[in-house]
Amino acid sequence: MKIMCTKSNLLQGVNVALKAVSNKTTLPILECVLLEANEKGIILTANDMELGIETVLEGNIQEPGKIALNAKLFSEIIRKLPDNDVEITTNSNHQAIIICEKSKFTISGQAGDDFPLLPEIERLQSISISQFMLKEVIRQTIFSISDNENTKLMTGELFEINQNNLKVVSLDGHRISIRNIELKDCYENIKVVVPGKTLSDLSKILNGGTEDEVNIYFTNKHILFEFDSTVVVSRLLEGEYYNINQMLSTDYETKIQINKKEFLNCIDRASLLIRESDKKPIVINIQDESMQLSIQSFIGSMKEEIYINKEGKDLLIGFNPKFLMDALRVIDDEVIDIYLVNPKAPCFIKDASQSYVYLILPVNFNAANI
Amino acid sequence: MKIMCTKSNLLQGVNVALKAVSNKTTLPILECVLLEANEKGIILTANDMELGIETVLEGNIQEPGKIALNAKLFSEIIRKLPDNDVEITTNSNHQAIIICEKSKFTISGQAGDDFPLLPEIERLQSISISQFMLKEVIRQTIFSISDNENTKLMTGELFEINQNNLKVVSLDGHRISIRNIELKDCYENIKVVVPGKTLSDLSKILNGGTEDEVNIYFTNKHILFEFDSTVVVSRLLEGEYYNINQMLSTDYETKIQINKKEFLNCIDRASLLIRESDKKPIVINIQDESMQLSIQSFIGSMKEEIYINKEGKDLLIGFNPKFLMDALRVIDDEVIDIYLVNPKAPCFIKDASQSYVYLILPVNFNAANI
Repeated sequence: MKIMCTKSNLLQGVNVALKAVSNKTTLPILECVLLEANEKGIILTANDMELGIETVLEGNIQEPGKIALNAKLFSEIIRKLPDNDVEITTNSNHQAIIICEKSKFTISGQAGDDFPLLPEIERLQSISISQFMLKEVIRQTIFSISDNENTKLMTGELFEINQNNLKVVSLDGHRISIRNIELKDCYENIKVVVPGKTLSDLSKILNGGTEDEVNIYFTNKHILFEFDSTVVVSRLLEGEYYNINQMLSTDYETKIQINKKEFLNCIDRASLLIRESDKKPIVINIQDESMQLSIQSFIGSMKEEIYINKEGKDLLIGFNPKFLMDALRVIDDEVIDIYLVNPKAPCFIKDASQSYVYLILPVNFNAANI
Repeated sequence: MKIMCTKSNLLQGVNVALKAVSNKTTLPILECVLLEANEKGIILTANDMELGIETVLEGNIQEPGKIALNAKLFSEIIRKLPDNDVEITTNSNHQAIIICEKSKFTISGQAGDDFPLLPEIERLQSISISQFMLKEVIRQTIFSISDNENTKLMTGELFEINQNNLKVVSLDGHRISIRNIELKDCYENIKVVVPGKTLSDLSKILNGGTEDEVNIYFTNKHILFEFDSTVVVSRLLEGEYYNINQMLSTDYETKIQINKKEFLNCIDRASLLIRESDKKPIVINIQDESMQLSIQSFIGSMKEEIYINKEGKDLLIGFNPKFLMDALRVIDDEVIDIYLVNPKAPCFIKDASQSYVYLILPVNFNAANI
């Protein structure tokens, strides 16, 4: 193989492919990226057997061929080269010779044929969405997946397409996050569960442009994202996702309107008094036009008052402050609506069109301490 | 005690004092800052028994008094308060009540009288230097102190004043770093060894202005830095510092001039092929108008050529790449002079006026591998 590529193109490609390189593997070949020059162009491929990424680089092929190179070493070398053209050749000993200006690296690789192929995906069912929107919905839901491998389905997110609506759902047993997106076209119904790791890796390599499209293809076992000159393939999680509709009630006894930033900053301050191990709740006392937040721990106590608009009954209710903050941090609205029923029932933070819905379960607290 | 202070003044003061708060202590009082309001003003003091910092805050005293508060908790609370006036009062239970806008924290502290006093320093001998210059000389020497507590004196830096010259020296057995500064005035001779930790903490709280002065006071056992509204007191290291003059020869067989950035970037790239455990040297081959750098490890090999100006003999010599990089990173000159004798003798990187001198010992290498 002999190719010529700019340093910046190489670096961009390697950084994309790196996301699918396994950190914890005993198979050295899975720590590699495959560098291949063929009739399709110069291609970098990484594959951790759950997630695969393939990205095409601009450059000049003088001789086709392929080699698998340790991904971390290769990316570090490229990063530190001068900002100029880079020539990469291979020899018959599975070595790569990397030349840039007066610098010449020789590193050992492995036969390209030993690298595991990405699964072939039939591109039948697909939808189209902007990179910006896909990146946003991941950011606004990914925090409430579970990291418990015993409830495997909770480590992923539901992607459900119904006509021109995309619904993305994550839940961890204490809360549910839902985003509803209107798509430009109508599609057949689709319902799949995508691994959380795939989504967080994907969101790091999406450039997030509002004009740049992502095409998403679905099969029974895989999901494929195609954008820019990159393809991301991931296995799906198997099984029937939780029926969340029965948990989403629209009844409420108390509705409040509150400034999001004030509310978030106040909980953030209060949570200074909690150490991770003790599960102290923040207690919210809604009375007339004000909400009083209070927290009491062995470190100290804190009280703060925030003005609100209220409809309905007064209420005293406790929450895990982290769950409230996680949801508040990803909402872009300046003023938000919160719907409550009683101290045992979940609260809902949602907008009028339900483009976002965050359900959070309350926690018990000792009212005598307040 | 009852005081009133802006959040930003409090935060700035706490951040300064935090540098002298002990992280590893079994004495809870040493994890505290002392907040005191007296006729001198509002004062924050921290003391880890080696290093003490006292800083005066602008603010309003309604009732004098003092209290010791957990430094980390206090600083986190102040950081997260709204950007407004903060009122701090104490009660008879050694509690502090911190009020800002509608937020009210109550945290437990300890009696201010239990806090260890800073040593009283007689302010007899002193010098004056700009904050910028002091911060620079620390940055340009601190990297070559030793962290080995068995050679205690190597964990500090020599500060030697001779008339209007300040010489700052650090060494670790493999290299020596020297900075010579011209002072505005002439002073009596002084020779002290300042703990490295003191200097690195100090350099973080110096604002680094060229117009802002630091007054440095010396006693037999202590050094005191006074600047802005802050005083830093530190113990000195005891003992006679190494006689470095015998190691500083001015003879050389080879003198080269090289572009610093090219040289640094080249070594930086080459060091990618070294893992921390294997002590592979970078080999430098000086021939005529060029220097060839090469490195060979079990990961791979690298060669690169750099144009130089040379006086004297050709030379083949090996170095620990980290030691070269550490020195090159802190030199501001675009082109540097390097003086060499033979493959067993130290090299010197220094400017004509010797405002900086970096001595680095070479390492052995197997010439057959080059």
